[in-house]
Formats: sequence, C-alpha cells, structure tokens
Amino acid sequence: MEEEGEKVVSSAQLANECIVNAATVRKDLNYFGEFGTRGEGYDVKDLLYEIKRVLGLNKEWRIAVIGIGNLGSSLLAYKDFLKQNYRIVAAFDIDPPKVIGRVSEKLGKPVEVLHISRIKEVVKERKIQIGLITTPASEVQAVANLLVEAKVRGILNFAPAQITVPKGYVVKDVFFTTILDNLAYLLSNI
Amino acid sequence: MEEEGEKVVSSAQLANECIVNAATVRKDLNYFGEFGTRGEGYDVKDLLYEIKRVLGLNKEWRIAVIGIGNLGSSLLAYKDFLKQNYRIVAAFDIDPPKVIGRVSEKLGKPVEVLHISRIKEVVKERKIQIGLITTPASEVQAVANLLVEAKVRGILNFAPAQITVPKGYVVKDVFFTTILDNLAYLLSNI
Repeated sequence: MEEEGEKVVSSAQLANECIVNAATVRKDLNYFGEFGTRGEGYDVKDLLYEIKRVLGLNKEWRIAVIGIGNLGSSLLAYKDFLKQNYRIVAAFDIDPPKVIGRVSEKLGKPVEVLHISRIKEVVKERKIQIGLITTPASEVQAVANLLVEAKVRGILNFAPAQITVPKGYVVKDVFFTTILDNLAYLLSNI
Repeated sequence: MEEEGEKVVSSAQLANECIVNAATVRKDLNYFGEFGTRGEGYDVKDLLYEIKRVLGLNKEWRIAVIGIGNLGSSLLAYKDFLKQNYRIVAAFDIDPPKVIGRVSEKLGKPVEVLHISRIKEVVKERKIQIGLITTPASEVQAVANLLVEAKVRGILNFAPAQITVPKGYVVKDVFFTTILDNLAYLLSNI
C-alpha cells in the first residue's frame, strides 16, 4: 500500500488482505500500542514503521553463514534476504578448497569464504548478530559453541540435529525432513 | 525406544520426553484410537506403527526436485530424507548444461537431471507424488502448473513467491526470509 501511494488503511481492509476479521486486526494491533484513529483507520507509513519495530525488522541484521556447501552457497546468493535488511557479511568453512573464494555476486560486494578458525575475530569486527549453520549434522553443535563463544545470539540451524545453547541465545531449526513430514500428513488427509 | 529394545512405554515417559503432561499425551493419542492399555501403557512397536500411520509416514513417498541450482543440489544430497522413506527419484531443470548430469551420490543410485519438458511422462513412469520446487521465484507458478497437470498432489515450494493450486493439491512454503523474520523477532525480545 505504501508503494502504491495509499495514505490510510482501515482495519476492514487489513482484515480482508489477511483473511481474518476486522475486530481481530484492531485487537491484535492494539496489543502493541494505539496506532490508529477511531473512524479513520491507520496511517500507512506509521503502521508500517510500528509493525517493523514490533517485529524487529526496522534495522539491519548482520549475518554469517557457516558451512559453504551447496546449501550454504544458495543462502549466500539468496536475493530475497536483502528486501528485509538481512545482510550476509561473512562466510566460513573448514574445508580449504572452499576457503579460496566461493562468493555471493548478488550482494553488493562478494563475500569471501574464510576459515572457521577466524570466526571469533570476524564476528567482532563485522558486528555479526545471526549465524546460519549449514554444516553436516555431526559438526553443528561444535559450530554453535563457537557462535556462542563469539556472542552471536541468534542461530538458524539447517543441519538435521538438535543443538543446545545457553539462556539468552535463540535457535530456530529448519529441518527439511520435518517440513516434508508435515506435507506427507496433509497429503494423507485430503 | 524401539531401537533400545524397550517393549512398553507409559504416557508419563512420553510426556517427559515431549515436555508436556501425561494427560495431554493420553488425550491426544486417544483422539486417533485406543492404542494403550490402562495401567500398563503403550506397546512401543504398535504405537510407533500407529503414529506413523496417522502421520502418513508408513509408506514411501516418491519425490521430484525441480530446479537444480545450489539449493536443488543440496536437496538431492540430503541424507536425512532416507530415514523417513522419502525417495528423490527424479530431478528436472531447464538449463541444458545442468541437464547433462549433476547427480546425487548419497542415494542408492545417482539421479540424472532431466529436461523439464519430460516432467509429465516421468511423473507417471516413476509414480511421483511430491515435487520440491527450487527454481527462481519468477518460474515457480509455471512449474507448479506443470506439476498439477501431471497430478503431483504435494508441493514444497522453496522459491520466495506465493503459488496457487486447485483444490485437492497441497502447497507448503519454505520461505527463508520469513524464518529469519521469526528469529529477528525472538532476538528483539530476549
């Protein structure tokens, strides 16, 4: 709506886009503050700003990818991240041939793949807040430990193994098998 | 527990593993049938069979990957799928160089990458039920249409674009940016 130049949006319009009811939209937004004006609706720019603030999307997140195989390489080249202020600013691997220089051409400048041993120093230098782990499952806890040691508070784990981190750190798992399980369940019930 | 040779499991044990309470375990399982014996618990083998049946995991699912770039290649080599009877039996791409022969060595035999134009014939021949789409976002609806035409009822979409399919077909999206949004939200609130 902002791109289309619209200034104001009603809860009914938002409800329609989200396929929920207008009262739910008002109640949910109200939970985070008084964003709208009764009878007029929400200012599009203000509402966008507030939602981004609530979701933690009003700033740049600086990201490292650890494990530059096929999956790691695809994440380095994942253009959609840039829309949302996700910037991959470092890439690490343990395997020397890969360390030489697989790069992401899609980002402003290529990201050089560094040896994993440099992670602590580079995290500090480049202010990295999120690590994407795409190593084999056997390595993922060791990598998570390195990230914790470097005080990287957010981890997205693509390796099919559970990891544990101390309090104050957040892990989200992306287990492709679990996602397929979900699809298989839905397919078994249509 | 089956691997460890245990014969019987109580709802309390299951509750403990799942970090819920025992009454919830009993109620949830009861929803699908009378699996346990009061005062004794559940037969491990039987319960495993029933849960797999409920989840649609008691059979082999035959899968095609469409779009063999970095992400598609990593899915072809994703060993964890095999644990759960997910078999990638075909791979398609539109780009001739790739069609020559990137393969998955991790599966029993390599999967040859075929030209997308052969999809309908190959789906029928190899009894494919699920398609994983890893093409650019601009191509994903066209690929979904081909899968629907070939009567592939389940689609896992990795491309960052919404697709629509007719009733009776199921789409699950794996949007990496949305997953990162979730992590960013959690990180903003610790």
